[in-house]
Amino acid sequence: MTAMSGKIVLGPNRYGKAENRVVRVYRDTDRHEIRDLNVSTCLHGDFDAAHVSGDQGAVLPTDSQKQTVYAYAKTHGAGSVEDYGLALARHFVDDIAPVRSARVEIEEYAWERVLVEGRPHEHTWTRTGPEVRVAAITAAGRGSDRREWVIGGVKDLVILKSTGSEFGGFLTDPFTVLEPTTDRVLATSLDVRWRFAAAPDDWDSAYAGIRAVLVERFAVLHSKALQQTLFEMGRAALEAYPCLAEIRLSAPNKHHFSYDLGRFGIDNANEVFHADDRPYGLIQASVLREDAPDAGIAWDPYTGAV
Amino acid sequence: MTAMSGKIVLGPNRYGKAENRVVRVYRDTDRHEIRDLNVSTCLHGDFDAAHVSGDQGAVLPTDSQKQTVYAYAKTHGAGSVEDYGLALARHFVDDIAPVRSARVEIEEYAWERVLVEGRPHEHTWTRTGPEVRVAAITAAGRGSDRREWVIGGVKDLVILKSTGSEFGGFLTDPFTVLEPTTDRVLATSLDVRWRFAAAPDDWDSAYAGIRAVLVERFAVLHSKALQQTLFEMGRAALEAYPCLAEIRLSAPNKHHFSYDLGRFGIDNANEVFHADDRPYGLIQASVLREDAPDAGIAWDPYTGAV
Amino acid sequence: MTAMSGKIVLGPNRYGKAENRVVRVYRDTDRHEIRDLNVSTCLHGDFDAAHVSGDQGAVLPTDSQKQTVYAYAKTHGAGSVEDYGLALARHFVDDIAPVRSARVEIEEYAWERVLVEGRPHEHTWTRTGPEVRVAAITAAGRGSDRREWVIGGVKDLVILKSTGSEFGGFLTDPFTVLEPTTDRVLATSLDVRWRFAAAPDDWDSAYAGIRAVLVERFAVLHSKALQQTLFEMGRAALEAYPCLAEIRLSAPNKHHFSYDLGRFGIDNANEVFHADDRPYGLIQASVLREDAPDAGIAWDPYTGAV
Amino acid sequence: MTAMSGKIVLGPNRYGKAENRVVRVYRDTDRHEIRDLNVSTCLHGDFDAAHVSGDQGAVLPTDSQKQTVYAYAKTHGAGSVEDYGLALARHFVDDIAPVRSARVEIEEYAWERVLVEGRPHEHTWTRTGPEVRVAAITAAGRGSDRREWVIGGVKDLVILKSTGSEFGGFLTDPFTVLEPTTDRVLATSLDVRWRFAAAPDDWDSAYAGIRAVLVERFAVLHSKALQQTLFEMGRAALEAYPCLAEIRLSAPNKHHFSYDLGRFGIDNANEVFHADDRPYGLIQASVLREDAPDAGIAWDPYTGAV
Repeated sequence: MTAMSGKIVLGPNRYGKAENRVVRVYRDTDRHEIRDLNVSTCLHGDFDAAHVSGDQGAVLPTDSQKQTVYAYAKTHGAGSVEDYGLALARHFVDDIAPVRSARVEIEEYAWERVLVEGRPHEHTWTRTGPEVRVAAITAAGRGSDRREWVIGGVKDLVILKSTGSEFGGFLTDPFTVLEPTTDRVLATSLDVRWRFAAAPDDWDSAYAGIRAVLVERFAVLHSKALQQTLFEMGRAALEAYPCLAEIRLSAPNKHHFSYDLGRFGIDNANEVFHADDRPYGLIQASVLREDAPDAGIAWDPYTGAV
Repeated sequence: MTAMSGKIVLGPNRYGKAENRVVRVYRDTDRHEIRDLNVSTCLHGDFDAAHVSGDQGAVLPTDSQKQTVYAYAKTHGAGSVEDYGLALARHFVDDIAPVRSARVEIEEYAWERVLVEGRPHEHTWTRTGPEVRVAAITAAGRGSDRREWVIGGVKDLVILKSTGSEFGGFLTDPFTVLEPTTDRVLATSLDVRWRFAAAPDDWDSAYAGIRAVLVERFAVLHSKALQQTLFEMGRAALEAYPCLAEIRLSAPNKHHFSYDLGRFGIDNANEVFHADDRPYGLIQASVLREDAPDAGIAWDPYTGAV
Repeated sequence: MTAMSGKIVLGPNRYGKAENRVVRVYRDTDRHEIRDLNVSTCLHGDFDAAHVSGDQGAVLPTDSQKQTVYAYAKTHGAGSVEDYGLALARHFVDDIAPVRSARVEIEEYAWERVLVEGRPHEHTWTRTGPEVRVAAITAAGRGSDRREWVIGGVKDLVILKSTGSEFGGFLTDPFTVLEPTTDRVLATSLDVRWRFAAAPDDWDSAYAGIRAVLVERFAVLHSKALQQTLFEMGRAALEAYPCLAEIRLSAPNKHHFSYDLGRFGIDNANEVFHADDRPYGLIQASVLREDAPDAGIAWDPYTGAV
Repeated sequence: MTAMSGKIVLGPNRYGKAENRVVRVYRDTDRHEIRDLNVSTCLHGDFDAAHVSGDQGAVLPTDSQKQTVYAYAKTHGAGSVEDYGLALARHFVDDIAPVRSARVEIEEYAWERVLVEGRPHEHTWTRTGPEVRVAAITAAGRGSDRREWVIGGVKDLVILKSTGSEFGGFLTDPFTVLEPTTDRVLATSLDVRWRFAAAPDDWDSAYAGIRAVLVERFAVLHSKALQQTLFEMGRAALEAYPCLAEIRLSAPNKHHFSYDLGRFGIDNANEVFHADDRPYGLIQASVLREDAPDAGIAWDPYTGAV
C-alpha cells in the first residue's frame, strides 16, 4: 500500500427519507383492513452540485418524498407492499427530472384479528411477530430504458427444532475443541430475501407461500449443518416458485448449550439448555438459477448501509 | 428542606441472578414440547455484613442461584412458569438460612408449531410475539409464617382498533390546542399484571383466559378514553376470574395521527395515519376487589428497579 | 389463597405524557449552550370519573401537558433539570384543579463541545455517554400542605476496574460450584438515584460532585463484593453531600470471565476475558441517614412502571 | 419479467463467528491498559460440499474461530484493532486450507480513566460513547497473490450544530410543502468508513486524527445541505491523510423542529426544539481519489448483511 495524491472527487451517493411509519386502514365496509408499514425512499441521480457546490436545485427535499409516501398510501396503497413500492419508485423516476433510479424499502408488520366470542373482530387486531415482511423495489431509467427489480423477503423469523440436527466430520485445527454431536437444538433468526424474475399472480400469496416452503423445509430436513439447511431451504423455494430468480439467506446460529447438570447428580438428556446471546455462528448463503437475469442494482442496500 | 447530619446506615437491599435464559424441551414422546424462559432470582434477608464489613459468609453466590435455576428446570420445570417459580422461591426461603424472602421473575416466550402439509410438526416451532407472558412469584417466611404471592401477566401486547374510539369533553387550560374527536385509532402496547388470590385450576389456562378477556373487552367497548378502556378491561378480568384479587395496567397511547392530505387535493377520511414514536400518553390504572387480601411485598419489583 | 367475590373498584391510577424530546438552545451570545432532555409528566388526582364512567371533564389532555413542557422549556428552562422539573410540577398542582400531585421525570443527555484548532467550538457539540443524568421531581398539595421531593441520579454509568476486587468466603450449598477468587475484573452499569433533603447551592455542581465521589470510591476501594462496593459508594456520597437524605444503587455484575487459553498452551494471567451478556448478578442496595425525612411518594415510579 | 426454469445452484456464501466480546487487559505495569472489542470473523472459500451434500470436511467450526479470536487477543492483541485484525485474517487465509479470503470486523468501545484526586486512576475506567470505533480487515490469496484491505471508521458519532446551517433553493414538486430556512439545527449520527491505501505510521493516531478532522470540518463549514457537509468532511479527511484512498459517509438527518410557541404568546427564536425520531432524511455519500487502488472485496459486508 502506498500514500495517495490523486484528485479528490465525489463517488457514489444517494439520499431519501427513511422510516416513514405509514398505517393504512381500509374502511370501505364495516370489516376494516390494515396495513402497517415502515417505508424508506432512496433516490440516485445527478446530485453532484448539491455535494460539491452546495447548490440544491436538483434536490427534491426528503420532506417532499415523505409527503409522497403518505399520499400514495391513499392513492396507490390498496394492495401489496410490492405494488405500492413499484408505484412510488416509478413516480420518482418518471416525474422527478434529476432522478436516475429510485429504491423503496418497506417493512410490513403483521396484525391478526382479535377473537370475540370465537369470531374475528371487524376492526380490532393484535400485532404478531417477531417476523417482519420486507420488500425492496428498484426502478431505473425511463421509457425503453426502464428496468425494474423486486425483492421480497422476511426477517426476524425465529425458528427452532429440538432434534433432527447433527454437526460432525468437520475440519479441525489446533484451536478446535468442539466435539461433534449427533443431536442438537438448531435455532436461528432468519433474514431471507428473494428476487423475483417475474411478477407472481398475487404478491401476498407468493409471500405466504414462500415463507411456508422455507419453514417446512427447515422442519423436515435432517440437518447436517446450517449451511446445508439454508441451501435446501433456498432450493425448495426456487423449485416451488418459478417466478423467483435468486434467494439469499442470512442465519445466526443461535446456540443452545445443553446444561451440565451431571455435577448435581441430575441427568440432562438434551432437555435443559442455556440459550446464549453472543457470540453466534453467522451463516450466509445464496441460491440461484443458472439462467437468472442480471441482478443489476437490485441488491444495493440503502437503510443501514455505509 | 434542610441539610442532614444523621448516622448513615444500610437501607433495603436485595440481590440475585437476572436473566437466566433457560430453554426446556420435553421429549418424552416424539411430539416434543418447549418452554422458553428468562428467569431472574432475587433474595432478601440478613445480608448486612456483606455490605457493611464485606463479610460474604451469609451470601449464596448468584452463580449458585443460576445453577439452581437450570437444575430446577429439569426437576421442577415440567409445567407452568407459576409452579416452577413457586418451587424456586420456596427452595431459597426454606433451604438457604439467611434468606427471609425470595422473588422469582419469569418471562416466557411463545412458540407455535410449524405446519408441514397442514399438520403441526412434532419438534419444530417459530417464535410468536411480540407479547410476552410474565410472572413474579414471592415467598416469605418459614413454617406457619409462610406467605406466598403470585403475579401473572403479559407485556408488549400491542393492540389497535381502527374505530370505536372517541376523546372529547376534556378539561382545557391555556396550553390546550387539541381538538376533540369522535373517531380515532386507539392503539397501545399493554403491560398488564394480575395478582392471584387463589391458585386457579390450571395456570396456563388462566393465562390464556385472562388474556382473551382483556383483548375481547378492548375490542367491543366503545372507548371514551384509554382510562375508561383500561378500567373496563380490568373489571372484566376480575369478573371472569374469581381467583384474581387485583390487576394493574400500563398503557402507552401509541398515537396514530391522521395525515393531512387535503393539501394535495386528496381526501383522507381516517384512512392514512402516521404512527408516531414519541412522545406518547402513558396511562396507568389498577382495578381491585374491596376484599382483596394484603398485597404485602407482591409488587416490589426487582429487575429494572432502582 | 381463596377465590374472591368483593366489589370491584378502581385502585391507584395516574397518567401523563411520556418522553417529550425537548432540545433547548441558549443563544443569547455567540457562544451557544444546549440542554437535551427527555421529559415525562405524570398527574395524580381525582380522575375516577374518567375511568369509571368515561367522563373526561377532569382530565387535562396529555397533549396539553406536552405543550406545557415545550413552553416551559422557554420560560423556565434556563437552568438545571431539577429547577425546570420543579417549575413544571408546581404548575400542574397549582393551576390544574383536579391534580393532587404531579411528577416530572427527566433524562438529560450530555454533549461536549467540538474542538477546533484546540479550542471549544461555540455552537457545535458531540454527544457523550452512555451515562445519562436523571431527575424525578414530585410536588403534592397546595398552600401550607405543599410537599416537594427531588431525586437526582445517573444511569448507564458503565465502570470497570481490572484489579482490586476479590470474592470469597461466601455461603455454599449443593449447587455451589463457583471458586473463590482473589483477583477479578469488577464491572457494572450503575443506576443510582439520590434523594435531596435540601436544595444544594447549585444543582448542576451537585450532580457533577456526587458522580465524582461515587466513581472515585469505586476506584480506590478494594472490593470484597459488589454489595460492599455499593454501600461504600453510597456512604461516601452521603458524607460528602449533607444535602442528601438517601441514595439507592442498582448494579448488574457484568461478568468478565477469564478465558481458558491453557488448552492451547497459552498463559492467560487475567489478561484476556470474555464479557458475557446474560445472566448477570444484580445487586441493589440503599444507604440512608437515620434522620432522613419521610420519602413520601418520592420513589413512586412512573415511566416503566406497572 | 418471466418465470424461470434454469438449474438451481449455490451462489456466494460465507460463514464465521460473530460478536466475540473480547476484553484485553494489559497489566505489565501497575498502570493497566484496556481494549474492549466486539470481533466477528468471516471465511470465504470452497464450502460447496457443506451446502450441497452436507459434508463438513472443509468447514472449520465457528467455535474454532472463536477460540482463535480469544487466543490471538493474547498473542497478537497488544496494539491497534487494525493490526490485530490483520493477524487474524492472515492466519485464516494462510493456515486453513479451504479458505480463499477472510474478513475480520471489529468494534472497539472506548473507556476513559476515572479521576481520583484529579489524577487518572491506574486500573479503573468509565465507558465513553456513544461513538464506536470500527474496522474491517480483509485478506485474500496466498503468497504472491496475497491482497489485503483495511477499512477503519467510526459509527454512532452524534454531532449537532445549533446554527450555521441553511437549506433552500431546492427542487419542488406538487408534494413540496417544506419552506426554505436560513438557520436551522443540523444534527446527525455519523457512520463513516475510510479505506486505507497505505498503512499509517500509527493506526490509533490515524483514527484519532481522522475523527478530529471530520468533526472540525462539520463545525466550521457553513452548511447548505447535509450533502455538501458530508462531501467537505470526506474531502478534508482525504486531504489531511494521504494514506486514505476513499471515505464513505452515511448520515441520518436527525430533524430538530422549532416548536410553535407563538400559539401561547411565547416567542421562540430557534431556542426550543422537538427532536423527532422518525422519519429522518438519510444521506449517503462517498469521496475518493481518482487514483484510488481497486477496492476489490474491501466493502463486502458481513455482519448485518443479507
